[in-house]
Amino acid sequence: MISGDRFSAVYRITGSEKEAYGKAKDLCLEETVEFPEELVPSGMISEQIIGRIESFESILFDSGLVKPNGLDQYRAVISYAIETTANELTQLLNVLFGNISIKPGFYLEQINLPQSSLENFKGPRFGREGLRNWLEVQGRPLLFTALKPMGLSAGELAEMAYKLALGGIDIIKDDHGLTNQCFAPFTDRVQLCAKAVQKANEETGQNCIYVANVTAPSNEIFSRAKLARDAGARGLMVAPGLVGLDTMRQLADDDGIALPVFSHPAFQGSYVTSRENGISHYALFGQIARLAGADATIYPNFGGRFSFSQAECESIARGTAISMGHIKPIFPSPGGGMSLDRVPAMLQVYGPDVIFLIGGGLFKHGPDLVQNCQYFRRLAEMYLKDQ
Amino acid sequence: MISGDRFSAVYRITGSEKEAYGKAKDLCLEETVEFPEELVPSGMISEQIIGRIESFESILFDSGLVKPNGLDQYRAVISYAIETTANELTQLLNVLFGNISIKPGFYLEQINLPQSSLENFKGPRFGREGLRNWLEVQGRPLLFTALKPMGLSAGELAEMAYKLALGGIDIIKDDHGLTNQCFAPFTDRVQLCAKAVQKANEETGQNCIYVANVTAPSNEIFSRAKLARDAGARGLMVAPGLVGLDTMRQLADDDGIALPVFSHPAFQGSYVTSRENGISHYALFGQIARLAGADATIYPNFGGRFSFSQAECESIARGTAISMGHIKPIFPSPGGGMSLDRVPAMLQVYGPDVIFLIGGGLFKHGPDLVQNCQYFRRLAEMYLKDQ
Repeated sequence: MISGDRFSAVYRITGSEKEAYGKAKDLCLEETVEFPEELVPSGMISEQIIGRIESFESILFDSGLVKPNGLDQYRAVISYAIETTANELTQLLNVLFGNISIKPGFYLEQINLPQSSLENFKGPRFGREGLRNWLEVQGRPLLFTALKPMGLSAGELAEMAYKLALGGIDIIKDDHGLTNQCFAPFTDRVQLCAKAVQKANEETGQNCIYVANVTAPSNEIFSRAKLARDAGARGLMVAPGLVGLDTMRQLADDDGIALPVFSHPAFQGSYVTSRENGISHYALFGQIARLAGADATIYPNFGGRFSFSQAECESIARGTAISMGHIKPIFPSPGGGMSLDRVPAMLQVYGPDVIFLIGGGLFKHGPDLVQNCQYFRRLAEMYLKDQ
Repeated sequence: MISGDRFSAVYRITGSEKEAYGKAKDLCLEETVEFPEELVPSGMISEQIIGRIESFESILFDSGLVKPNGLDQYRAVISYAIETTANELTQLLNVLFGNISIKPGFYLEQINLPQSSLENFKGPRFGREGLRNWLEVQGRPLLFTALKPMGLSAGELAEMAYKLALGGIDIIKDDHGLTNQCFAPFTDRVQLCAKAVQKANEETGQNCIYVANVTAPSNEIFSRAKLARDAGARGLMVAPGLVGLDTMRQLADDDGIALPVFSHPAFQGSYVTSRENGISHYALFGQIARLAGADATIYPNFGGRFSFSQAECESIARGTAISMGHIKPIFPSPGGGMSLDRVPAMLQVYGPDVIFLIGGGLFKHGPDLVQNCQYFRRLAEMYLKDQ
């Protein structure tokens, strides 16, 4: 009944050596049987179902790393029988970080899934290569912006989309706070914006796509996605923190929709704000977003108005491309309070396989929105010329 | 186009007075227009859509409260136009705590919704009174336990359910890690467990209910819920951290299912592990769980193997019952590493309107599971006699 195949996860555990080892043992029970150890039936359950400590070592803080709150930390690799997950993303997440999310001093750094686990997931439909082909853009960073602010009418947002597309942006999305407000109801907005982008494409000969935000009540997500597709939207954005990671997976897997999926980090921040509790940037915005079907993972760039460090952002980029069997690499999409001036520096860090999300900064750069976009485009194209 | 009705939220903001006030102003933009203030169109958007600071005051740490990491904190009440939420729970949560979840030093303490917001939500179908009537138990705490450990067969779990019901437990649920594993597939487990509880009820004349865990891939939650209902399950459990809060809302609202909903906190812990970032216990496990349709909110009790304080647990209990228009009061359901010895002390804290969730502790108390349950029942009934 048990294959013997196991997946594993790397945890950072806070406490003295004795405390941390006790916590690692507790984790093995808590995430699987949730039962007093002495009462666990011997045999398969005690030998296979309970998590297993594969390694346990001190984290060395001598190379510039700083102890969080001055506390010691240990790194434990814990393995679990693949059967504990029932081949479900929801239950995989539950085993990895369900109950221990509630306990202090547990931090999920990384997950390692064998092929027998990975084969339960399709991952992103497009991935980096597929999205480049969808956009017909090779070799340079992709340009991404958002329609805002909330309160504009559908017609005003569409007019903005038209200018942004005319200026050479590759991907234009709804701001993540635009859902179905009375100012710009979903159906009107999506129809007008998709049409506006199409009109600009006809004039420029380019291939800009409009991405509709389908973060919505759970019983409306799929109808909105289909409506967006029928209206000419050529991508979808969703915030898995608000709708559930597995809903994003279902959206990506749906052959009747079959559009690129952009993952937005709203309501997920609390997982990554502490170094003692939570999930690493690498695992959450890299590995897990990918497993859950995102073709691009949006996150706040370092140096913007958010607080991610450069190292954390680089770790996300690594997580988007690290080998995960048949699960395709996806695009990191740093954004949030970025200005155009920072594009060259970001190119140094990310290279060409990145989607630059610039919202407000694109509007601030100068009075003419089309010219601002053209400038943004030239910055990205410099990368091609430099090669 | 704008009604003028506003909802508000109380935030705790970390920093010096100047920093904290700047953060409060930033929050007003970030959660609504996400746009540089100087570019926000004047008129309705600048006057109504942008969040508004209604009050801002220092948090006094003189009455035994401890400053987190020695930092100052301020309390700001921010109001938003009700139209920003599009009458959606997902977008309400996004306005309350979407992007600022990613920024350091923002903590959501409490939400205040006017009737014009509340009327968009049905809330719990049963609530305290409805669940008491469903169980036919008045005046005393309700007794709740879980089938475990993972790895037992459906038949073994059903045998366990039979004994628990025979011993006088009111509510028997799947452990939250039991989904559709090969050891005890969902359909088999639910059919056998529902039948076993029914058999015990026929013998005891009592009215124990079996609650099926429907935390599952998003495209299977509703089919499992219907299957469970048809099989005789008389309640459902779901972990909104894994499936999305609005999915729980949809489950509660579904007239074809119409079963009590028990909310499990797995994967939600990271929201409440810090006093500087996240959401308060009161708001997340009290107000928000209720708004999202839970009839009972499960959370780790103080003094068990988790780390919630007594004050935090009491705040959850307050959140389950505080006046929220037509949204019914729900049951707090403390559990997690509890032993039977603690029942009398918990009665002092919670009073009779509580669901005691005892898992492993019920099995540990003595060798005979039925007798352990009978003892648990006597402890709860003492409350009635004492009155």
